[in-house]
Amino acid sequence: MSDFIGTTADLLRRTPELLRTLLSGLPEDWTDTADVPQNGWRPRDVVGHLITGELTDWVERTQRILEHGTAVPFDKFDRFAHAARDTDASLDELVEHFARLRAENLARLSELATDRDLDRRGMHPTLGEVTLRELLATWAVHDLDHVSQIFAGMAGSHDAEVGPWKAYLGILLRRDDPTAIAG
Amino acid sequence: MSDFIGTTADLLRRTPELLRTLLSGLPEDWTDTADVPQNGWRPRDVVGHLITGELTDWVERTQRILEHGTAVPFDKFDRFAHAARDTDASLDELVEHFARLRAENLARLSELATDRDLDRRGMHPTLGEVTLRELLATWAVHDLDHVSQIFAGMAGSHDAEVGPWKAYLGILLRRDDPTAIAG
Repeated sequence: MSDFIGTTADLLRRTPELLRTLLSGLPEDWTDTADVPQNGWRPRDVVGHLITGELTDWVERTQRILEHGTAVPFDKFDRFAHAARDTDASLDELVEHFARLRAENLARLSELATDRDLDRRGMHPTLGEVTLRELLATWAVHDLDHVSQIFAGMAGSHDAEVGPWKAYLGILLRRDDPTAIAG
Repeated sequence: MSDFIGTTADLLRRTPELLRTLLSGLPEDWTDTADVPQNGWRPRDVVGHLITGELTDWVERTQRILEHGTAVPFDKFDRFAHAARDTDASLDELVEHFARLRAENLARLSELATDRDLDRRGMHPTLGEVTLRELLATWAVHDLDHVSQIFAGMAGSHDAEVGPWKAYLGILLRRDDPTAIAG
């Protein structure tokens, strides 16, 4: 628990560079497929959702906890705000927008909070009382959750090309059946 | 299908840099957890398995196809070779070893094969006849499959810290129950 905020920020700082490395300039046939066939998200949807988190969620909620504790609940998080907002931007532009917002938010976080604040509480509109520590850990795991959706979509884009090897590729089998076990 | 090998190599070239960005110098409490609790792989196991692929699988099999077609089956792939081989190496050392091997193999691939070879066939010891195109597509999707295991392990390392938000984090819920749907 020593330097929890520093360690969490270290991971959060990596995500924009990771998205650049994975996606920058990649041909569209790798990036136009959703993570799952039904109501899934393409890489651009995922990056848009991460942008929404930077605009409205993580640091806003940190500030809410520090200013109001549990007295004023967090605003709800609109999980689909990206759909209307990002239609004209390229995937590379979305990644760079996310990178700018993430850098700004990590700078704000380092000014707002220290590890002594981690047990301070806020009020989630659905989940009830939560701590700042839980909010910041969730920020990091939320990155991991959604970036792995991008991997599933990219794999899915080449589902038809792996031939019989699909039987060994859990990332493809699980798009059709979440309980599938690779051979 | 124009420049299939070039596009596939473009993705394969990104994986070492991606692993560096994600893992280099990261505190061990993010990297010592397996993707699933039962018989899962930690990030170092995943990188070790990717090293085995570079040492014994992808380009060796490419060469086998080009030299022998279906007449000589591929050697079997030892999915657990890393367990005995990599015990003394740090995670950062494993990533750098993988990066060297991947660069060498992409150089070998570009000398060995062109898109005119993609329909040539080889013999997989279990799956039967496969094409060079299927082998190369599988190489790339195999990267995506295993790197996403690293994300699941990293998320799992902070499972206890997200508190009630776990209900919204599919990457954590699926470690316990593959059919879980995030709220």
